[in-house]
Amino acid sequence: MRIEIICTGDEVLSGKIVNSNFSHMSQRLEDVGLTVRWGTTVGDDREALFNAFVEAGGRADAVIVNGGLGPTVDDLSQEIAAKAAGVELALNEEWLTRMESFFLRRSRVMPPNNRKQAMLPTTAEILDNPVGTACGFALDIGKARFLFTPGVPRELRRMLEEQVIPRLLARSGLQSAIHLKRFHSYGLGESHVDTLLAGVEDLVGDGSVKLGFRSHYPQLETKLTVRGTDRADIEAKLAPVQAEVRKRLGNFIMAEDDQTLEGIILETLAGRGGTLATVETFTGGLIAARVAHLFGAEPVFAGGVVARDLRQVGRAVDLDDGTAGDMSLAAAEAIARAARVKLGASHALAVLVDLDEGPDRIDFGGTILLAIATKTDTASRRARILGGRDWVRLGAVEMGLDCLRRYLLGLPVNERIDFEKSD
Amino acid sequence: MRIEIICTGDEVLSGKIVNSNFSHMSQRLEDVGLTVRWGTTVGDDREALFNAFVEAGGRADAVIVNGGLGPTVDDLSQEIAAKAAGVELALNEEWLTRMESFFLRRSRVMPPNNRKQAMLPTTAEILDNPVGTACGFALDIGKARFLFTPGVPRELRRMLEEQVIPRLLARSGLQSAIHLKRFHSYGLGESHVDTLLAGVEDLVGDGSVKLGFRSHYPQLETKLTVRGTDRADIEAKLAPVQAEVRKRLGNFIMAEDDQTLEGIILETLAGRGGTLATVETFTGGLIAARVAHLFGAEPVFAGGVVARDLRQVGRAVDLDDGTAGDMSLAAAEAIARAARVKLGASHALAVLVDLDEGPDRIDFGGTILLAIATKTDTASRRARILGGRDWVRLGAVEMGLDCLRRYLLGLPVNERIDFEKSD
Repeated sequence: MRIEIICTGDEVLSGKIVNSNFSHMSQRLEDVGLTVRWGTTVGDDREALFNAFVEAGGRADAVIVNGGLGPTVDDLSQEIAAKAAGVELALNEEWLTRMESFFLRRSRVMPPNNRKQAMLPTTAEILDNPVGTACGFALDIGKARFLFTPGVPRELRRMLEEQVIPRLLARSGLQSAIHLKRFHSYGLGESHVDTLLAGVEDLVGDGSVKLGFRSHYPQLETKLTVRGTDRADIEAKLAPVQAEVRKRLGNFIMAEDDQTLEGIILETLAGRGGTLATVETFTGGLIAARVAHLFGAEPVFAGGVVARDLRQVGRAVDLDDGTAGDMSLAAAEAIARAARVKLGASHALAVLVDLDEGPDRIDFGGTILLAIATKTDTASRRARILGGRDWVRLGAVEMGLDCLRRYLLGLPVNERIDFEKSD
Repeated sequence: MRIEIICTGDEVLSGKIVNSNFSHMSQRLEDVGLTVRWGTTVGDDREALFNAFVEAGGRADAVIVNGGLGPTVDDLSQEIAAKAAGVELALNEEWLTRMESFFLRRSRVMPPNNRKQAMLPTTAEILDNPVGTACGFALDIGKARFLFTPGVPRELRRMLEEQVIPRLLARSGLQSAIHLKRFHSYGLGESHVDTLLAGVEDLVGDGSVKLGFRSHYPQLETKLTVRGTDRADIEAKLAPVQAEVRKRLGNFIMAEDDQTLEGIILETLAGRGGTLATVETFTGGLIAARVAHLFGAEPVFAGGVVARDLRQVGRAVDLDDGTAGDMSLAAAEAIARAARVKLGASHALAVLVDLDEGPDRIDFGGTILLAIATKTDTASRRARILGGRDWVRLGAVEMGLDCLRRYLLGLPVNERIDFEKSD
């Protein structure tokens, strides 16, 4: 089945907004085994919209249109959809009532110009939008089924899951029971993981498990799309494959599905009544910022210290300057111990970065000295990362948090990663 | 002149990569007075690329193609460009030599598959790429001039400025002397600034100054595009308009052009031999993270404290718990004073957030208590921001830094902003 996406709106076409709706739709379709073949971006312009609709209607089997369903004069999707389909616009009483009650629930009267959002092509099938006043709808233009969706990301995402994807799967004849399993890892590059996982798809012989990746440095997401007749069938197919993925990627898997690395750390500490103190230099607060604002972090996050050099760090944690005079693992450990006491935490994580000299460049690097302290124990790790200031900074944040996860879960803190270079 | 953009590549079409190249190109063209009329996204697929080239060549006067110039087998732009233009591919000796010396300068031998990057359509005009091996080129397909650019953002950006925009301006017949003046503000919404600046374009009667905005919460960028016969003409036209913008937006302008808010703070402190300590709660390290990693921040950033509540803050800055027991401006001031002493800085900024209870929602809010201390002085400000956890967090970071800028420059710290709500 040939699927296209048309994104509309002057703000998207002019680049004022980066078009993340497109990538979200395309990724979600890929997750369920569908492929987008062509993307078109046009502005709020009658002629351009009409041409885009007619051309896509001549090429595709299904077209998702995003944007142009709002109440203002430059929202043209319904009008041009009707014209391209050769039908009239008519007031949809059902949607008008929905909108009026939407405003009523918010103790407001519907402004008159919202009435426009209930003007739909006469052949339109409504696609429900439970979180906004923009009415999604579907109709045929040319040989394609067009699905019109709102530009507001929150509304689009919900409609995509609940209305659009089920309809596309039904049209495609693909089995509609589909599950996306995700693993989040740090430390192994995409091609390395691809090699490590060679053949896992074949553990299920009928091709119903598909492997994919999404890399956003420093993390890598490994995705398994599983297709089946029902939930039980999917679980049976997924079980051996996910067991194998867990085995092969081992300690590198930090989190699965909607879990996050920082969420796992928070949950593990909270489960033990533990608390966390952080000390960081070049990462400049980014390690604390991953944990401190989380819902539920109040009782766990005991505080953080940010500084540029060891003397400042020493001063902040009441440590004699002499102890922390040198960039060494011993100094990092001493600092973690002192910070734990000073900030009154069960665990302290110190991530100190010794940056190369000079201007930023592609082989600019930093040496990361990382220590974790509890009341009775200390662990530490040294690593060198190259790739420019930002690359080092983001890598140090991730390595710090990942080593803390490893420590909390009793896994080795010193496991070599792909991004690491020898000194 | 009708301009289109074609973005190519499976990673862009499938949404693995968010297409920020498109928005960058479109914005930069708008900055110089050119308008993109149509965008197309296709994968690494011969038929789709051919159709996209031929269709755009039938509609447009100029087409920018992005991506597909690499050395691998799925990089197809040169091949399909030649086919669509009805010409042959031939080895371009000039570019081959350029590539060989490119590798030589890096003490490497050119891998054989890079040779493919020098295979260009015989009618191609080279667009120089001083920072990579992908050869940009221009040629005619249909009635349009096609400009082929690399997908690597760094290479694209340079080629766009140096090769593509000058050619498009020349073809459009627009005056090619163009200047983009930018103002960065915090605290006024886009429609408010639009109203405040009504008529400034008309201070130059010939329509050669155009006003635009780019909003990325919490900051707003106000842009003036000025067209003229030469640099002197542009400066003469810009002078009265930028003076008026500065007058009307006043203290809300934090930085201009490539300056940043944090850069201004760093520069101002460095110029006085000053140093900065930060204390923050819900912002969780993000305030420190804006300053601490900057080039040149070592002598200025004295350290930061991150905590979740006042008791933790008090403990970290050696302040008696009683003083900082309550969320009040007096407590914030006491904390700023103590942090300044503890971290040994000339200036301390404390940003404390008292968050609403309960789950995240659109009217979730926070009360921001902000204090700045020096050896002899203290300033403070209270504000309430609504809009969800992230909105409050980002707003508090920006407000904290902006108030520090205001304080350092002798401007009022307590100036009401649009994002602020009454309690």
